[in-house]
Amino acid sequence: MDRTQKIIAGDLRAVARIIRDIDDGLPEAREILKELYPQTGRAYIVGITGSPGVGKSTLVDRMIQYLRTQGKTVGVLAVDPTSPFSGGAILGDRIRMQRHSTDEGVFIRSLATRGHFGGLTPSTRGAIAVLDAMGKDYILVETVGVGQDEIEIVRAAHTTLIVLIPGMGDDIQAIKAGILEAGDVFVINKCEREGTQKTRQELQMMIEMDKDRKFKGGWKPTIFATEAVKNEGIDELMTGIEEHRTFLLQKDTACFDRFQQDRARMELFDLVKQDVVQSVMEHLTRTGQWDEFIRELVQKKTDPYTQSERILAHYLRTGDAL
Amino acid sequence: MDRTQKIIAGDLRAVARIIRDIDDGLPEAREILKELYPQTGRAYIVGITGSPGVGKSTLVDRMIQYLRTQGKTVGVLAVDPTSPFSGGAILGDRIRMQRHSTDEGVFIRSLATRGHFGGLTPSTRGAIAVLDAMGKDYILVETVGVGQDEIEIVRAAHTTLIVLIPGMGDDIQAIKAGILEAGDVFVINKCEREGTQKTRQELQMMIEMDKDRKFKGGWKPTIFATEAVKNEGIDELMTGIEEHRTFLLQKDTACFDRFQQDRARMELFDLVKQDVVQSVMEHLTRTGQWDEFIRELVQKKTDPYTQSERILAHYLRTGDAL
Repeated sequence: MDRTQKIIAGDLRAVARIIRDIDDGLPEAREILKELYPQTGRAYIVGITGSPGVGKSTLVDRMIQYLRTQGKTVGVLAVDPTSPFSGGAILGDRIRMQRHSTDEGVFIRSLATRGHFGGLTPSTRGAIAVLDAMGKDYILVETVGVGQDEIEIVRAAHTTLIVLIPGMGDDIQAIKAGILEAGDVFVINKCEREGTQKTRQELQMMIEMDKDRKFKGGWKPTIFATEAVKNEGIDELMTGIEEHRTFLLQKDTACFDRFQQDRARMELFDLVKQDVVQSVMEHLTRTGQWDEFIRELVQKKTDPYTQSERILAHYLRTGDAL
Repeated sequence: MDRTQKIIAGDLRAVARIIRDIDDGLPEAREILKELYPQTGRAYIVGITGSPGVGKSTLVDRMIQYLRTQGKTVGVLAVDPTSPFSGGAILGDRIRMQRHSTDEGVFIRSLATRGHFGGLTPSTRGAIAVLDAMGKDYILVETVGVGQDEIEIVRAAHTTLIVLIPGMGDDIQAIKAGILEAGDVFVINKCEREGTQKTRQELQMMIEMDKDRKFKGGWKPTIFATEAVKNEGIDELMTGIEEHRTFLLQKDTACFDRFQQDRARMELFDLVKQDVVQSVMEHLTRTGQWDEFIRELVQKKTDPYTQSERILAHYLRTGDAL
């Protein structure tokens, strides 16, 4: 069997290796992803995001547990976009998930933040495609933080969970309007703390105010309260995810079609961005022109806007249709 | 006076307008930025980042207050990368900062998240350049969150503040290693809460462990505790920022030169990324090919990797040097 066949057959070593190769941006990885593409589209992808400290890892652990008792196989990707300098996955394969390490139905990996030219979105999508092609029923993608990157990552998911905790102060209220639009399901974790009811009411109010949800066919986000460390509220949450799945996949075909198109559009856009930028930058670096440009900028002999336009004019031909 | 001259002269209406135009990506804004470029490089830029709820706005408010009593003029940019869907600045010009609204030495603006093709970094840099060219002594750039975008934004700063609060749970400990490398100065705000000493010790330990700091000439990050709502610890913090400024600007010229080069490199890279991607995408959209490609992808007639390579091959000529 070649590497692609091994991945499709679920060979753990082959899967681990391809995810590493994707993260490292190796050209072979890309060729394999091309071959895997026809095998993708079967897994159900759940994105989980939220600020540090809200208990995402514990929640994911409980979700794995639940899905396993339902007989589902699970792939987990922990994406860590917080370390652009060290370029390594800090979280590692989370300690709390270690107990699943002997379960063949669970595959857990962390992704670092390589992908200097295109951000980490393309490598995350690639890793999702691998877990999909290897036949996992559910793929849980956990990201740290609530920035734009994280939201882009979770947009690749069918169902996006936004995890909050009660009483996170004024700032969290301010950003809710932003994350609201990205969330299909809201989870108030650590719900035994004071303020759960207030947070729930505020969320509810914002959902009600958001009359014209354009994304994902007008689904009205739902709210669940969990105490993940005690395994409380998990059944209800998972039922809630299932409800969204039903809505998305069966409500009417136009809704799902648009979702599929949105995903394809994002995926291709991210790749084009990565490929075009990487190609131009590699060329500028190889010819030594890049360093010269930087010198000119520092000396204020030119400005970056004019310089970028020169680069554009030189490298791009936009005359006729492809 | 033309628009550029008005901005340099500090005309508030002209400044507000150009920042809006930059945020909206208007071509005229870019031409003005070219003209402003020679006037930039005088302001001292301080980036402030941290999770929602740590009290960044209050801290920034106190910093403005301090700098004003020192007779310094201050520009403030509140960057909100959390709303890629609504595309608007949610935070507005923060309520807590309103009291500075009658002070001519203070200019406060929020930036939204336009810039569909290149992220919000180029528009933030543009706005910084405007405040710099208008003659502000200090520019405070506040961002919500601790994701990659935010770190890229604060990398444009001379001094980067990472704001924490005591006892944010396990996850914050895990990401510290990532944000550590981005921070020049750490601020433990809300320091009257339990756990300040522990958080300080943990930070200290991680700083000690980080033997080979490559960025910014080997500066060893410092830690300050503040209770911003009570205006406590602000003097010490500001002195700490001044120390870093002295280190950066005077320690040895090689250090500052490298910093200037790093900044120029990031700025040009971000612009090239934005320009190249925008140009290719606009062309694909205009010719209607983009929609066709998406259809083919949804039908799995092709894969996104091959498709992106086709686009690259068509639009890019990388034969000879510029």
